[in-house]
Amino acid sequence: MGQTLTEKILDDHLVEGELETGEEIGIEIDQVLTQDTTGTLVWLQFEALGLDEVQTELAAQYCDHQTYQFDFKNTDDHRFLRSAAGTFGAYFSRPGNGICHNVHKENFAAPGKTLLGSDSHTPTPGGLGQLAIGSGGLDVAVAMGGGPYYIEMPEVVNVRLEGELPEWATAKDVILEMLRRLSVKGGVGKIFEYTGPGVESLSVPERTTITNMGTELGATSSVFPTDEKTEDYLARQGREDEYVEIGPDEDAEYDDQITIDLSDLEPLISEPSMPDNVVPVREVEGVDVDQVIIGSCTNGGYEDILPSAKMLEGRSIQPDTEMIVAPGSKKASEMLAREGWTAEMMAAGVNYSEATCGACIGIGHVPGSDSVSLRTFNRNFEGRSGIEDDNVYLCSPEVATAAAIKGEIVDPRNLADELGDLEDPGFELPDEYAGAENDIITPDDPVDDELVKGPNIGDVPLKDPLGADIGGPALLKMDDNITTDHIIPATQDILMYRSNIPKLSEFTLSRVDEDFAQRALDSDGGFLVAGENYGQGSSREHAALCPMFLGVEGVLAQSFARIHKANLFNFGIVPLEIDADDYEQIEQGDDIEIVDDVADAVRSGQEEFTVRVNDDWELTAALDASERERRILADGGKLTHTKKQAESSGSDAPADD
Amino acid sequence: MGQTLTEKILDDHLVEGELETGEEIGIEIDQVLTQDTTGTLVWLQFEALGLDEVQTELAAQYCDHQTYQFDFKNTDDHRFLRSAAGTFGAYFSRPGNGICHNVHKENFAAPGKTLLGSDSHTPTPGGLGQLAIGSGGLDVAVAMGGGPYYIEMPEVVNVRLEGELPEWATAKDVILEMLRRLSVKGGVGKIFEYTGPGVESLSVPERTTITNMGTELGATSSVFPTDEKTEDYLARQGREDEYVEIGPDEDAEYDDQITIDLSDLEPLISEPSMPDNVVPVREVEGVDVDQVIIGSCTNGGYEDILPSAKMLEGRSIQPDTEMIVAPGSKKASEMLAREGWTAEMMAAGVNYSEATCGACIGIGHVPGSDSVSLRTFNRNFEGRSGIEDDNVYLCSPEVATAAAIKGEIVDPRNLADELGDLEDPGFELPDEYAGAENDIITPDDPVDDELVKGPNIGDVPLKDPLGADIGGPALLKMDDNITTDHIIPATQDILMYRSNIPKLSEFTLSRVDEDFAQRALDSDGGFLVAGENYGQGSSREHAALCPMFLGVEGVLAQSFARIHKANLFNFGIVPLEIDADDYEQIEQGDDIEIVDDVADAVRSGQEEFTVRVNDDWELTAALDASERERRILADGGKLTHTKKQAESSGSDAPADD
Repeated sequence: MGQTLTEKILDDHLVEGELETGEEIGIEIDQVLTQDTTGTLVWLQFEALGLDEVQTELAAQYCDHQTYQFDFKNTDDHRFLRSAAGTFGAYFSRPGNGICHNVHKENFAAPGKTLLGSDSHTPTPGGLGQLAIGSGGLDVAVAMGGGPYYIEMPEVVNVRLEGELPEWATAKDVILEMLRRLSVKGGVGKIFEYTGPGVESLSVPERTTITNMGTELGATSSVFPTDEKTEDYLARQGREDEYVEIGPDEDAEYDDQITIDLSDLEPLISEPSMPDNVVPVREVEGVDVDQVIIGSCTNGGYEDILPSAKMLEGRSIQPDTEMIVAPGSKKASEMLAREGWTAEMMAAGVNYSEATCGACIGIGHVPGSDSVSLRTFNRNFEGRSGIEDDNVYLCSPEVATAAAIKGEIVDPRNLADELGDLEDPGFELPDEYAGAENDIITPDDPVDDELVKGPNIGDVPLKDPLGADIGGPALLKMDDNITTDHIIPATQDILMYRSNIPKLSEFTLSRVDEDFAQRALDSDGGFLVAGENYGQGSSREHAALCPMFLGVEGVLAQSFARIHKANLFNFGIVPLEIDADDYEQIEQGDDIEIVDDVADAVRSGQEEFTVRVNDDWELTAALDASERERRILADGGKLTHTKKQAESSGSDAPADD
Repeated sequence: MGQTLTEKILDDHLVEGELETGEEIGIEIDQVLTQDTTGTLVWLQFEALGLDEVQTELAAQYCDHQTYQFDFKNTDDHRFLRSAAGTFGAYFSRPGNGICHNVHKENFAAPGKTLLGSDSHTPTPGGLGQLAIGSGGLDVAVAMGGGPYYIEMPEVVNVRLEGELPEWATAKDVILEMLRRLSVKGGVGKIFEYTGPGVESLSVPERTTITNMGTELGATSSVFPTDEKTEDYLARQGREDEYVEIGPDEDAEYDDQITIDLSDLEPLISEPSMPDNVVPVREVEGVDVDQVIIGSCTNGGYEDILPSAKMLEGRSIQPDTEMIVAPGSKKASEMLAREGWTAEMMAAGVNYSEATCGACIGIGHVPGSDSVSLRTFNRNFEGRSGIEDDNVYLCSPEVATAAAIKGEIVDPRNLADELGDLEDPGFELPDEYAGAENDIITPDDPVDDELVKGPNIGDVPLKDPLGADIGGPALLKMDDNITTDHIIPATQDILMYRSNIPKLSEFTLSRVDEDFAQRALDSDGGFLVAGENYGQGSSREHAALCPMFLGVEGVLAQSFARIHKANLFNFGIVPLEIDADDYEQIEQGDDIEIVDDVADAVRSGQEEFTVRVNDDWELTAALDASERERRILADGGKLTHTKKQAESSGSDAPADD
């Protein structure tokens, strides 16, 4: 039987388990990446594990979220990260050099390799045949130490592309169409493998827009086969020697198949406030637009900004619409500047930013109250922009630029008709990706050889092994689709405490209930209760670490988002699934007690747990966990677990588990 | 007797008083400028005055401090300011278009005119013969309404420039030399008028670096005569018709004279943490530098960044030194981008920012802890960079760039010797100042015709005229030397409430007693009691406005700082001087009552007031006020006073007083 592309790469890296859907496998990691809001904890954990050198082929540390350095804590974080990269042997991308996914794609992404990254959009290089997965930082730290990465073998879904994109439809519309069809939960436990004759019509940067935003489907990863376009792309980066031809066998069997005829697509847009809230742009024409932003890891490349610049050449944006362009990388920015496009955009009225994640995570260019913002980003979760009750739409650079020109949402096809001289700018790659050569410090030539920790950089808290009895109040009852943004907001005032867990924990779930953190601290243990898809969104492990610090011992939810569930294991919090009826019955403040001997039950593989509520009624909750996850959970989390293992094996490298 | 340039411009605009040093004069204002942290209050006051149209030749509203828009309140402020400019008839410079002083210089500054601005660096256009003065926002609002601006006639000091600057010495070194000689208090009550043969060797942008940073001397303003260089500069901006030849008479008499031989200057630097802490760069060589920033209203022009770009061409900055370039205007940025310099700077490793005040006021690129930052800015007050215990040096772009190349402080002459191929880049003007044409919205073509107030934008409270009886508790008793920073702190978390007086008032005197604001609100009126020098420091009018909002009716102090006392008059709070013995006897909570008919006594010129304490003992307090100040105080502050005057004159314009 033939293999899918996913299976081929996994097979090539398999160190434990078998490639059966749903089975846990351990894979070797070739490359890791971390960024500045998750990276500090990664390195603190790497240090806490007693490791002294990166073991993967490549590790890269980026500084992209906090490039504005609004607080000395941000700047100190960057200095710490540089020192960690130098000390332990990673590449260091300087603040202002760009977003991890963009810079990684331009410099390191390689077909056939595995990549683990402490950022949920890590799957971006899937567009050039790399199997790239986002995870919590602790998994990254362990992988960087040479340990395998464990995951349940996902379903592999064939997304067959046919036809070619018509005018004004873009790669963004492909992934928006996927979201329209499948919803933000449609990819959970799945890897999307793009195949079919439509693939060859898409360039690598178009493919990476799709793989990048595959994260919004909840997917484990997304991947394209490699072909001449991949080789050509790598050649333009001077990395043609890293090209590998890789794709599925003709007789590969998939768990499912979806077909998209590219020629059926048209400009689409996600309405507020969920990425799957997708409609054709023409259906929402006429909405006044206050702010337009081009950028982010989804659409912040040279190739994404160029069409916008071409549309703006000789034109001006509406005076009552602000337009910000935040390039994804300094290399892209330098190329655009060198070719004169930056000046053209400024002439049109664009506020041209340094390269940053910035506004995508609510840092800078927060929309005004009661205003509309169109962004080329990947997420429009309510409040993520930095203001509650925001109205953020997601779309392609072309649709965003059309709105800036018109001052309202407009289908670019209609704007072209109206203006007469506006043409689809097309999609073009630079002859050569050149620029920002001084912004990556290599591990061969580091500038630091010891860790530099500013006063805000604390230690990593450790949890005791699981005990027999777990009980306490239902500290908070939440609805469906609680995101990690709800659990630990990423706004600037909070983000700067990512390296300081006691302080950061004060903001836990504050967007749901501002008294929660104090209530949890005051309680001696307790539970969170949630509906479906708890913990979706960003991969941030702080969303598990901070509840752990506050004493939360378990989460009862109807279902969990994949990365967050792994993070709960990693920080020793018991994730239990409950059914809808029981969810309805539990009320905040109820007294919850797990009747079983928890430590023993977790270790022994017990799947069903009896939960007693208010000493009055009982429900059955399920623990869906691999043997390995059970050992981690029982040990009090992965850090304690890995450390314990390393000590017992007498080796520096985290052992296979 | 001949006139100085200052006297000529003042004479031309005099509406009250005589040009005798120390005498109060009233002058007509031709142009006003405001920025985003002071401008909201200016327009709210303009609105409260019942005015409906700008009466000055020109008013310009800039958005420069909060361009990163890290909170929706910033974005809302910008939207309000746009609506105010549109509604009342001012130019509006969009967020991201640059720093008020740079954009004003490029577009509106004109020889012979008067300019009043609600920013301390308003004197910048003195470099092209404009008499420009910084003031509180209420003065700007009144001037914009057509009222005169009142000031004590300053001393006029002749700064005679001889010779020409040698290689690697710059205009920045001229003003640093002034600071070295005179200190930050050396210009108080003075206008510096630059004359002599050295003037013609300096281009207009060099002159504006000097006039801009004259503020750090404490000067009221600084001014240069106009000449061919001025005419040429205006011609490059397409504004040659605004050229006026203006200069002092040959026999002008000055209050004082200073001579600087430009040929004696060398690269200078201000050490932490005061601008007058000036030494030759060569004396501090070898200090490791973590951060270098080129920008600000002092050295953020095209002409300031170009030398830096030339020095960086084909070179790279040290990997452990971060370098940020934040242009002063989008026009400068667009020109540099169009000529390829932006790409060259990025190639060298520069993080290229949008145009902003940014780091100069501690917003963004805050230095790391225990680090050194070299900046081309004008102030290095401790903590201003955003971190306490900072180490900020001030220098020219050339010195800053040399440090980025070397990674440590180095005299550029020595770096040139060391590198062999580094030449003084010189100082060059663009052939034509062109760019960012879409970023100024004119009053002829506004996009708003009514005020748009977000939820954080409140009304300006008005005070009733002074009554006959004033009494209440001593709400707070303070020590000597209470600063306006104590009264209204200016940290970021509080700064965003500058448009929301009720909210801002909650922070009043919180650094002295965090319960004060609530106690004052709960009380029906009351007094502040203070020792010597009450209200020293920054001129912010919020330090009087917020106590007024809280119901404070009088301040009993041993002495007052001059500007704050003027602000107390302006907001209708009675400032009474008491002696040390009485100060000692009064206790917080004591019941205070002014025995006299206060309104009548203030109006009639009464200087001594009887104050009854706890219905038990009496003291005598003194009111030292001019007739004009007494009328303002009795009317309930300048806002009510001006409004009343306008109403009684039947005119929209605030009458002469």
